[in-house]
Amino acid sequence: MKTLEDLTSIEQMEADTAKLKEIACSVCAETWEDRNKKQTPHCKFGEDGICCKNCSMGPCRITPKASRGICGADAHAIAARNYARTIAAGTSAHSDHAREILHILHGTKAGGNYQVRDDQKLIRLAQEYGVPTEGRDIYDIAHEVAEVGLMEFGKPSGTQRFIKRATEERQQVWREQGIEPRAIDREIATTLHMTHMGNSADPEALVRQGLRTSLSNGWGGSMLGTEITDILFGTPTVRTTEGNLGVLEKEMVNIVVHGHDPAFSEMVVTAAEIKELVDYAKTKGARGINIVGLCCTANEVAMRHGVRMAGNFLQQENAILTGAVEMMCVDVQCIFPALAPLSECFHTKFVTSSPIARIPGSIYVEFKPETAFDQAKDLIKMAIDNYQKRDTSKVFIPSTKQAAVVGYPNEQIIKHLDGVTNSHVDRIGSYRPAIDAIKAGVLRGAVAIVGCNNPRVRPDYSHFEIMKELLQNDVLIVATGCAAQLATKAGLLTKDAKYVCGAGLRRVCELVDIPPILHMGACVDISRMMLLATGIAKDWGVKTTEIPVVGCAPEWMSEKAVSIANYVVSTGIDVYLGIEPQVKGSSQMMELITQGTRNIVGAGYIINKDPHELVKSILEGLEAKRAALGI
Amino acid sequence: MKTLEDLTSIEQMEADTAKLKEIACSVCAETWEDRNKKQTPHCKFGEDGICCKNCSMGPCRITPKASRGICGADAHAIAARNYARTIAAGTSAHSDHAREILHILHGTKAGGNYQVRDDQKLIRLAQEYGVPTEGRDIYDIAHEVAEVGLMEFGKPSGTQRFIKRATEERQQVWREQGIEPRAIDREIATTLHMTHMGNSADPEALVRQGLRTSLSNGWGGSMLGTEITDILFGTPTVRTTEGNLGVLEKEMVNIVVHGHDPAFSEMVVTAAEIKELVDYAKTKGARGINIVGLCCTANEVAMRHGVRMAGNFLQQENAILTGAVEMMCVDVQCIFPALAPLSECFHTKFVTSSPIARIPGSIYVEFKPETAFDQAKDLIKMAIDNYQKRDTSKVFIPSTKQAAVVGYPNEQIIKHLDGVTNSHVDRIGSYRPAIDAIKAGVLRGAVAIVGCNNPRVRPDYSHFEIMKELLQNDVLIVATGCAAQLATKAGLLTKDAKYVCGAGLRRVCELVDIPPILHMGACVDISRMMLLATGIAKDWGVKTTEIPVVGCAPEWMSEKAVSIANYVVSTGIDVYLGIEPQVKGSSQMMELITQGTRNIVGAGYIINKDPHELVKSILEGLEAKRAALGI
Repeated sequence: MKTLEDLTSIEQMEADTAKLKEIACSVCAETWEDRNKKQTPHCKFGEDGICCKNCSMGPCRITPKASRGICGADAHAIAARNYARTIAAGTSAHSDHAREILHILHGTKAGGNYQVRDDQKLIRLAQEYGVPTEGRDIYDIAHEVAEVGLMEFGKPSGTQRFIKRATEERQQVWREQGIEPRAIDREIATTLHMTHMGNSADPEALVRQGLRTSLSNGWGGSMLGTEITDILFGTPTVRTTEGNLGVLEKEMVNIVVHGHDPAFSEMVVTAAEIKELVDYAKTKGARGINIVGLCCTANEVAMRHGVRMAGNFLQQENAILTGAVEMMCVDVQCIFPALAPLSECFHTKFVTSSPIARIPGSIYVEFKPETAFDQAKDLIKMAIDNYQKRDTSKVFIPSTKQAAVVGYPNEQIIKHLDGVTNSHVDRIGSYRPAIDAIKAGVLRGAVAIVGCNNPRVRPDYSHFEIMKELLQNDVLIVATGCAAQLATKAGLLTKDAKYVCGAGLRRVCELVDIPPILHMGACVDISRMMLLATGIAKDWGVKTTEIPVVGCAPEWMSEKAVSIANYVVSTGIDVYLGIEPQVKGSSQMMELITQGTRNIVGAGYIINKDPHELVKSILEGLEAKRAALGI
Repeated sequence: MKTLEDLTSIEQMEADTAKLKEIACSVCAETWEDRNKKQTPHCKFGEDGICCKNCSMGPCRITPKASRGICGADAHAIAARNYARTIAAGTSAHSDHAREILHILHGTKAGGNYQVRDDQKLIRLAQEYGVPTEGRDIYDIAHEVAEVGLMEFGKPSGTQRFIKRATEERQQVWREQGIEPRAIDREIATTLHMTHMGNSADPEALVRQGLRTSLSNGWGGSMLGTEITDILFGTPTVRTTEGNLGVLEKEMVNIVVHGHDPAFSEMVVTAAEIKELVDYAKTKGARGINIVGLCCTANEVAMRHGVRMAGNFLQQENAILTGAVEMMCVDVQCIFPALAPLSECFHTKFVTSSPIARIPGSIYVEFKPETAFDQAKDLIKMAIDNYQKRDTSKVFIPSTKQAAVVGYPNEQIIKHLDGVTNSHVDRIGSYRPAIDAIKAGVLRGAVAIVGCNNPRVRPDYSHFEIMKELLQNDVLIVATGCAAQLATKAGLLTKDAKYVCGAGLRRVCELVDIPPILHMGACVDISRMMLLATGIAKDWGVKTTEIPVVGCAPEWMSEKAVSIANYVVSTGIDVYLGIEPQVKGSSQMMELITQGTRNIVGAGYIINKDPHELVKSILEGLEAKRAALGI
């Protein structure tokens, strides 16, 4: 029987990091820990969100003696403008990712580098879009769907098509509150305009625009990203894999794919299976080619190919520090520019591939859809050629790794729930069994744990503590992004993890044959969670604000996370944060994000840096929702 | 004969401000001077552009001890990201302005609040767009043109249509350099994505994207804003008007229209002419209704109606401090939130009208195209009702004002040049006569003086000094925005101002019958200047980089200005700045913006805070271009 002792503890993870840090010191390499130390204490004005750089009269800062910037913007206006811009930037990242994927769908063809892998999903989306499907070539459908999808970014009028997927109640709230998202890029531009010098200074107006912009992400860009990625590379299915640095192989050519957009990494993964390249690796003395993932690219390729995961955000330098990585190929987002100087301390080739993420000191191989597969092959060959340059005296691969079961998009969850549905009594294809378990109290609720790592808290610790405690309290967890990867590293993504759960959750895991934490994908896939909550609310016949389901981002770091948190709140789901949004210098903004949004969309933030306090709030929140439902 | 003494000096302007400042003190009102003092010294990290707030690991700051942020971004990456975001925000403001105007064009109808006033310009644009015009109703054409225009913001593929207006050489440069602007909102979103945590850290890549984004403004959003505004409200023609606070009338109901988007102010101006309202004002003891403009809204209504101009950016509080303003109606951009508390010290009604610019403490009357005229009438009535609440003991209207001739869009310039063209020898409708004057050395060149005020330098002083010196050196000036308004206040927009010019320029002014500074409009109209430079280059048969024409923004302040400066540079025209872009903390960025862009687009910045030094550089720059042309 599995116990807490069988999990990989944070202390064990930290011990590995400490050993790698010794290597870093020995090669005089700087890591985030050093830089974090030098950057601490952070500028208080920035932390509090009351520094304005939006015109060159400034920067202005709010102090007890200077309550307004030169233009007259006060702490509330400044914090709100900064916050809104953060949401716009986060939205841009997710939506631009989706745009790239849509352009790839637009270029698919039979026998091409990119093909349609999930015909059924494409056809369903075509039908949703009103694109004719009957008797048409699948690629004609794909191209037209891509065109409709691309218009979601820039159409001059109308709102996001996917909002029709939300509950009637949500659609009504968004309409009545005037926050139905228009074209994605338009919401981004509008937010920038509103926050430009001499425009909005009203925090509530800016928070509302933030919600609207975030909705264009959650029910627009991100959802498109997820849908189209599934269509292109297949909707994920349950797979076993492994996670943590132990997945690097001493005797193989190790290639790490890192970033977020799977378009390139899919090619690398596929190319690495070519016999000719594997044989070539053998001629260089390697046992073969070992592709592993890092950050959200890891989640993408793990879910679709079972590719093993080397780690999450703050582990990116550790991977190179093992001295055993021949190549790190990155696409976009969350890539440390520090990887360039760090890789120079080793033999590692650091390859950038996107015009969006140009990093000095990297080898830039601009990924082109039409040549992507050949480019991937070339890169793998370059990595193989690099294998013999590995300085074995510098190599240290921690043995730590855990098995994991990944790949639970909504379709897989439904499939598992169908397995416990008595089809003579209930209709299949619903979340009914999960709802029944919640109603019965066997499950107390569900929590989506998402987000990054952040040196502002002990890395991975908050994720781990919150996960353990929720599981013990019979709360099912769905996870994405770096949170999901902590669960992987810890060993919580195994079916055996049921043994660390409360009796109710354990029973559910056994009956439904799932691990207690369901890996739903990358951070862009939090859109799946929105559809999950929507599905539960619809099948239950209650509002999304009523179901005992909440979100939690204990260690969030990026602007994307702020955009996500806002669309989750807009969807009616409370969000528990372990890192404070940088608006603390404005009492009005603190009130707005924790309480004010409740009057607009019926949900808000609960913020606590202490993971144990935070999990206590989550449990209280879930129980309060249960009580309100009379269950 | 007019001499320098007949101009209104900066000292006289400052004396008026000083008197108004006394009033401010007497009512305990704060003004920008107080806030500027409290905000000085500014944060050095912000000023140098080496503070990063793009993720919540930070804020990070570059210091001698901390050469990289936590992610590893160095000073160059951070400064470049901040700079690129500034361009994106500036682009969003101008392009969103254009979008609003396009939506209004889309809603025009015969007899409606908004109608097509310049049929010919609409038809020319329709033909350029390939929209059929033959035998069609003008409003059908208008609506289709609006639809095509709106697609420029969000089309999934292709580049901005207006780039075809540029010289062949420019089009080739933009194509070869990979900076042809795609959809406007897409460039904005791309810039935000590139600058999101974990993406581009390469200053050159970010500067290139900045150029591209700015081109979507100058040859996209701004140019659309100008074109459509002309179509809706008429292409400006030469008009006489007056400028400075002396245009406020002691015995009239004073209404100040302030901001940038003329859609609302046009209604206010038109409504104020209604006899019923004028009569109503008289019943309240006023002599009538006096609409005056402030900031770029002033430029818009002055050019089209001769409405008098109360002042530029840093004069906005002064207007209220006169105690004689019954209402200040604002639309978008450059509006001090400080106007709300300030207007509370007086009887002034401070009215906001746009969802883009929500300001706490204002009366919010959301402007709707379909009810705009009625809303304008209601507001004027509100202002009239407010007249008797004026506290005459608090009133001080400086008598200072100057006459001005405004309204020189390209069409008017050509028209004036046609007047001196010998149509038997040369074709009319060209810039040939101006080119000939430049070639002959009668004119040494032309300078576009544009931009805001900024307390970082003595307000208006740099504009004034540079203008005077250029005129004395036979350099023709075209001006927009707050620079044009300083020229107005100074008295430099009169034909008599020829007397402060060198002999060559004076002769040109006399022959062509123009003032030596041509008022070309609001800041959005700098697109007109791009077409002017393009027209000169085409008629001359040389490159835009070769003509002795440069841009100068001595007191720029807003993010829009940075976007503008970038598209001017991208158009091949050097830009002389009196305020440093906030990238000083990165040697690479300083090199890129002053020299690096020359390798990309053939132009760059020259920066000097001292106006006399700056004008020296300008003259040297013009002479160098002349020498290179062999003239």
